[in-house]
Amino acid sequence: MPEIRLIDIRETILIDNGHAAEDLRMQLAREKVFMMNLMASPGSGKTSLIVAMLPYLKERYRVSVVEGDIDSMVDSEKIIAAGGHAVQLRTGGDCHLEAAMVQSAVDTLDLEDLDVILVENIGNLVCPAEFDLGESMKVMMLSVPEGDDKILKYPQMFSICDALLVSKTDTMEYFDFNLEALRERASVLNPTMKLFPVSAKTGEGIASWCEWLMERIESYRMTCGQNV
Amino acid sequence: MPEIRLIDIRETILIDNGHAAEDLRMQLAREKVFMMNLMASPGSGKTSLIVAMLPYLKERYRVSVVEGDIDSMVDSEKIIAAGGHAVQLRTGGDCHLEAAMVQSAVDTLDLEDLDVILVENIGNLVCPAEFDLGESMKVMMLSVPEGDDKILKYPQMFSICDALLVSKTDTMEYFDFNLEALRERASVLNPTMKLFPVSAKTGEGIASWCEWLMERIESYRMTCGQNV
Repeated sequence: MPEIRLIDIRETILIDNGHAAEDLRMQLAREKVFMMNLMASPGSGKTSLIVAMLPYLKERYRVSVVEGDIDSMVDSEKIIAAGGHAVQLRTGGDCHLEAAMVQSAVDTLDLEDLDVILVENIGNLVCPAEFDLGESMKVMMLSVPEGDDKILKYPQMFSICDALLVSKTDTMEYFDFNLEALRERASVLNPTMKLFPVSAKTGEGIASWCEWLMERIESYRMTCGQNV
Repeated sequence: MPEIRLIDIRETILIDNGHAAEDLRMQLAREKVFMMNLMASPGSGKTSLIVAMLPYLKERYRVSVVEGDIDSMVDSEKIIAAGGHAVQLRTGGDCHLEAAMVQSAVDTLDLEDLDVILVENIGNLVCPAEFDLGESMKVMMLSVPEGDDKILKYPQMFSICDALLVSKTDTMEYFDFNLEALRERASVLNPTMKLFPVSAKTGEGIASWCEWLMERIESYRMTCGQNV
């Protein structure tokens, strides 16, 4: 009698994704291209943040944006209207990006002419946290209207990120949002995660966040140089 | 040589969920218990909405709330603090509720002493749309801070719901949100879906929304009576 084979689809997906992510990470390191994975809820302001970051990043780097969406091109259109370069990934139904999807977007780019890729993940605080994209840095954003208790409800997302952006700070007086309470909870769960309050509308905090990011990009590029 | 069997895990999950949902739907119909499935992004105000609805519903019905969350009990605690009855479902990582999970919550309730169950799904605009819970009605909520373009990006969720609540309308002047544009897009995608602007903070729209819901609960109860 043939042996019964048990295939745990979920584990297989995650292992295969892990390999694809590692391949992409190596490829980007060879070309010294820094890739940031931006994750957040729907409507937290991911595209507006990227639009606000572009003037800072473009002073020093050649930047492309990879926009993940289930349907529609609206985010890429906004990036292009702001003078940026964008590739739109449509997942058709998937609630998160996977490394192979990002690879297919990267394949359309000329990496020799590029320094930074900003990936905007699908609006979702759950599944994107499980999928390594081969990125150099994971960043999550939480908007003030969502409330300061989200860290209790979506702990995995908060525990894996290098930076937490608190967006729409211009609406702080309008919502009952306790930034210090969030900061305390975050420092318990993920002590090395750096927190930046930002507002794409007023520009508050965007410069400091971009300065910190650009320092990280610089150290990434130096490390790449040593390894190659 | 034995035939190769292909098992499409995803389809199997959905078919099994469909059976579990149908069983639960029949059980609830026998007991004339109306169950509403509330879906929305993280931080759109689902729990606050339920707290605002309770005084209206409790005038006529015996109500229980089933709170879905990945982690934490904070939502149930809010419902109980507001004088409601709540069962907390912790998915531990799953980004959506399935019928079997809701069944396990329903099994803890005495259906003979109950008229209405309000289910708060996981904060997510993608996966919950795919899973029938055996509910009598699907309702989605979109908060003003999330923006009026979400219908373009998450079309499946908008296409399956009986009602669309636009929440946090008290922040309308603060955000660039075009209610008429949303109404138009919604009427193309899902012409029978009813739209209610609401604010749990000011109470705006809660009474009309609850009145409409209670009419639907009444017709559900009449239909159940005919079928049993």
